[in-house]
Amino acid sequence: MATNNRRWILAKRPHGMLAPGDLELIETALVPIEDGQALARVKYLSMDPTMRVWMTDVPQYMAPVAIGEVMRAFGLAEIIESRHADFKKGDKVLGLTGLQEYAVISGKETRNFQKMPSIPFVSDSSFLGIFGITGLTAFFGMEIAKPQAGETLVVSAAAGATGSIAGQIGKIHGCRVVGIAGSEEKCKWITKELGFDGAINYKQADWKEQLAAATPKGIDINYENVGGEVMRAVLNRMNLHGRVVLCGLISEYTKGEPAMASFSQIIIKRLRVEGFLILDYTSRYLDAGKQLGMWKMMGKLKDRQTVVKGLEKAPEAINMLFKGENIGKLIVEV
Amino acid sequence: MATNNRRWILAKRPHGMLAPGDLELIETALVPIEDGQALARVKYLSMDPTMRVWMTDVPQYMAPVAIGEVMRAFGLAEIIESRHADFKKGDKVLGLTGLQEYAVISGKETRNFQKMPSIPFVSDSSFLGIFGITGLTAFFGMEIAKPQAGETLVVSAAAGATGSIAGQIGKIHGCRVVGIAGSEEKCKWITKELGFDGAINYKQADWKEQLAAATPKGIDINYENVGGEVMRAVLNRMNLHGRVVLCGLISEYTKGEPAMASFSQIIIKRLRVEGFLILDYTSRYLDAGKQLGMWKMMGKLKDRQTVVKGLEKAPEAINMLFKGENIGKLIVEV
Repeated sequence: MATNNRRWILAKRPHGMLAPGDLELIETALVPIEDGQALARVKYLSMDPTMRVWMTDVPQYMAPVAIGEVMRAFGLAEIIESRHADFKKGDKVLGLTGLQEYAVISGKETRNFQKMPSIPFVSDSSFLGIFGITGLTAFFGMEIAKPQAGETLVVSAAAGATGSIAGQIGKIHGCRVVGIAGSEEKCKWITKELGFDGAINYKQADWKEQLAAATPKGIDINYENVGGEVMRAVLNRMNLHGRVVLCGLISEYTKGEPAMASFSQIIIKRLRVEGFLILDYTSRYLDAGKQLGMWKMMGKLKDRQTVVKGLEKAPEAINMLFKGENIGKLIVEV
Repeated sequence: MATNNRRWILAKRPHGMLAPGDLELIETALVPIEDGQALARVKYLSMDPTMRVWMTDVPQYMAPVAIGEVMRAFGLAEIIESRHADFKKGDKVLGLTGLQEYAVISGKETRNFQKMPSIPFVSDSSFLGIFGITGLTAFFGMEIAKPQAGETLVVSAAAGATGSIAGQIGKIHGCRVVGIAGSEEKCKWITKELGFDGAINYKQADWKEQLAAATPKGIDINYENVGGEVMRAVLNRMNLHGRVVLCGLISEYTKGEPAMASFSQIIIKRLRVEGFLILDYTSRYLDAGKQLGMWKMMGKLKDRQTVVKGLEKAPEAINMLFKGENIGKLIVEV
């Protein structure tokens, strides 16, 4: 059995993309656990754009990660030793493991972990994707959107973990769904595999004209993950009383200054823009997960993962999110 | 009787503030009215920030005013001659008279006019202010805000026609109300006369610190008329699940580029931002007017007007809005 724990600590707050030295890989000895503690081996780590926000010290929805602390991350781990009443060896748990190989669960930290259900035909890692934070985010975000059959939904970062599920939920509700993504491969995946009605590659020069052509009746719902120029182009095509579900602003997270975007169309089109975070829906995770599972079993939902192997690749994996290099859920296999 | 009509036409689209020559005062002969027409003498013209938007050709909620057209304006007029079934001489009407001395009402244009009620102790011009578009805008905007007793409401452009009413409605609902305005005189008016709990002069260097001190429990509702730096400072103090009623963005209307502002706090604080326009509430104007009138009679609502005399002063009056030179409702007396 290993005696050391490799851990990525936040050494300094990044500017723009993560640079070498922003996160620092250290190795510390595993201390024997005490009564009330459990030791978990991290198996999969969820890579999420919000991690980049946690690295900054701007006002945010959780405390920023402190300099010198293990970088916060959501992960899936297996209990390998337990003196904790809630866990026994072999249990699989989901929670804020941190960007490291081993996590000790004890005291107040216990509430950040939950035992993982074991469900036939459902892979462990899908609890970080379609049945995890990102799938649930898409579920509740689309609930806010109140999609009606025949309406046009535009999803940005449409080949990402959340966008790909949100768009499919739109299809389930009978919407015309158009995705915006950054490569031909992504566009092909969301149309050919996921059944989106259209896909716009925003790296093509005429993408705004393509967006107009793909949304002949305007846009009723914007499930927004990107912000900036992408969001501005979408807002300009919104219909009256459209709904903007503001889920993320990934184009802004690597910028030094506060996120900027156009507000005027919100008035002109009488839009409702709602900011939300999955944190407010914890009591409904289980029901939502059942619904997602049902849809998946019925073949109405498909998911995909990009898996990067090796904890030492974590910083590169985080940057992949901002370079648009992943399709579907990005996971580090530890 | 006059034989000529003085009219301001839009000669060219302004950049920034109105410059001489953007609006052009012309004089045309009054043509005798025909069957189905009524001739109205304009008495008061409402000066509204949205006029500046109508002068641009950006996508907006009504057609932009065309070059060469009489500038669009809302006004109060008296019928002086009628061959129109709906109007008789002496009737007072409210509607889109245009920025001119005389308006001819006929055909489709009829729907843009309504006969003005005659109510004891209510001045004609108050139908352009507290009982007009601006008062009604405050009424419905505050309905969207769903104010609860004990909540903190911050109103920007708080000494303006809409902001001054919105803040008082907040007081009626038991909110702590803080206004943001651009002079000591305005701040004094909204606190001493209107009963706001606090007023911040954003032209003072430490206004953001003053705002923090005046909102010790954060901000639950932002009735926003200004945008830009003012809105950003307010958003940064919003509480979780706060409501932003986005009524106007006056700081942006004289800028050449689309309005910009920060979105990130909308997510972090799980805000609901609603854009709205009074146009969607026409069927409820009467009920709302009754409620406003009741509050005014009970001494719970006070209003104020800044009156500029002479149609020839209209362009200067429009610029006054953007220089913050009016208190309460700005009206041109023709």
